[in-house]
Amino acid sequence: MPELRVHNLTVSVDGYAAGPRQRLEQPLGEGFGSMHEWMFAAMRDLADGKGGVDVEYVERSKENIGATIMGRNMFGPQRGPWEDESWTGWWGPNPPFHNDVFVHTHHLRPSVVMEGGTTFHFTDEPVEAVLARAFEAAAGKDVQLGGGAATVQQYLRAGLVDEMHCAVVPRLLCRGERLFDNLGDGIDGYRVAELVGSPAAAHVRLVRR
Amino acid sequence: MPELRVHNLTVSVDGYAAGPRQRLEQPLGEGFGSMHEWMFAAMRDLADGKGGVDVEYVERSKENIGATIMGRNMFGPQRGPWEDESWTGWWGPNPPFHNDVFVHTHHLRPSVVMEGGTTFHFTDEPVEAVLARAFEAAAGKDVQLGGGAATVQQYLRAGLVDEMHCAVVPRLLCRGERLFDNLGDGIDGYRVAELVGSPAAAHVRLVRR
Repeated sequence: MPELRVHNLTVSVDGYAAGPRQRLEQPLGEGFGSMHEWMFAAMRDLADGKGGVDVEYVERSKENIGATIMGRNMFGPQRGPWEDESWTGWWGPNPPFHNDVFVHTHHLRPSVVMEGGTTFHFTDEPVEAVLARAFEAAAGKDVQLGGGAATVQQYLRAGLVDEMHCAVVPRLLCRGERLFDNLGDGIDGYRVAELVGSPAAAHVRLVRR
Repeated sequence: MPELRVHNLTVSVDGYAAGPRQRLEQPLGEGFGSMHEWMFAAMRDLADGKGGVDVEYVERSKENIGATIMGRNMFGPQRGPWEDESWTGWWGPNPPFHNDVFVHTHHLRPSVVMEGGTTFHFTDEPVEAVLARAFEAAAGKDVQLGGGAATVQQYLRAGLVDEMHCAVVPRLLCRGERLFDNLGDGIDGYRVAELVGSPAAAHVRLVRR
């Protein structure tokens, strides 16, 4: 059965997946700064043919993905109605997804076809319906769930996530958006399958109980 | 200068330092169960002359400590006024502190002299005053701050902790008492000095910025 997977979700030691006041210049909020550096370093190592714990996790995140789901905050800094529809994501003309991407938003707009096989769809449907569309688009492959934290929480709360990988990095953010919050009883369905340290991060993998 | 140090504070991946409903049969709350197993295993290894990351952290926790501070929850399961004063801690007649131990409580009682050099003092003074007494008792050595989370938070909030070691263990607790909560701006004074993984835990060391 195809699965819904979260990968490379970076959190601080005190549990924040984003800092406060997310905006254009600070997509992941104040203080988040270099928190993804472990991942960029792993991507460079991967490109250079090097191995390591971080590289293995980044490699896994790319395997067998056929569609992507994300929240609007991961797609862009706007809140509320779109002022114009020229924004097509943070990633330039050829985004790294190369598949259908379903963006949760209350403010619908037409799908946007990008270079390289990425198409952004905007939906205000419930998580179950969006996931069903994503599985259909993935045609037998798995679906990757991106951030932000609020979107991941919605899917965890509904028990829809099959596997979640977080990278805990040696930083204190002190405030922002907590990953393990607003989960209700949904989180009871999960357990820690793996906790592995690298010099850059402690990798945690959650699976269903 | 002598320091105030926290060691071996065990937290779940989702950030809980204790489960809900702490009581006599469940001193650290429901679900906490075997979360300290990494530490007991390290103590056994230390006794057997074996090494390793966990052993190093446990060894460090024993070095140069001259007094101890803890919250009432760490001392015992009672809440409110003492029903009787026969309770002398979880640790039997010869507790593992072997120095003066200052227990924060709103309900004072006479000091209790135990075997092996441990004396429990009960105090309702502010953290600054208790710390001053503890430093005096420690006579030039460091002071160790035990749990629970609420007590550690008080000292962090006041910026009085010099060093804090937590062990993140591969468990989800889902509910209980969060370590990184109620910290106000106090936590801004700290940074992560170390994040090191062992097969049993990810060790985090916080120090002042």
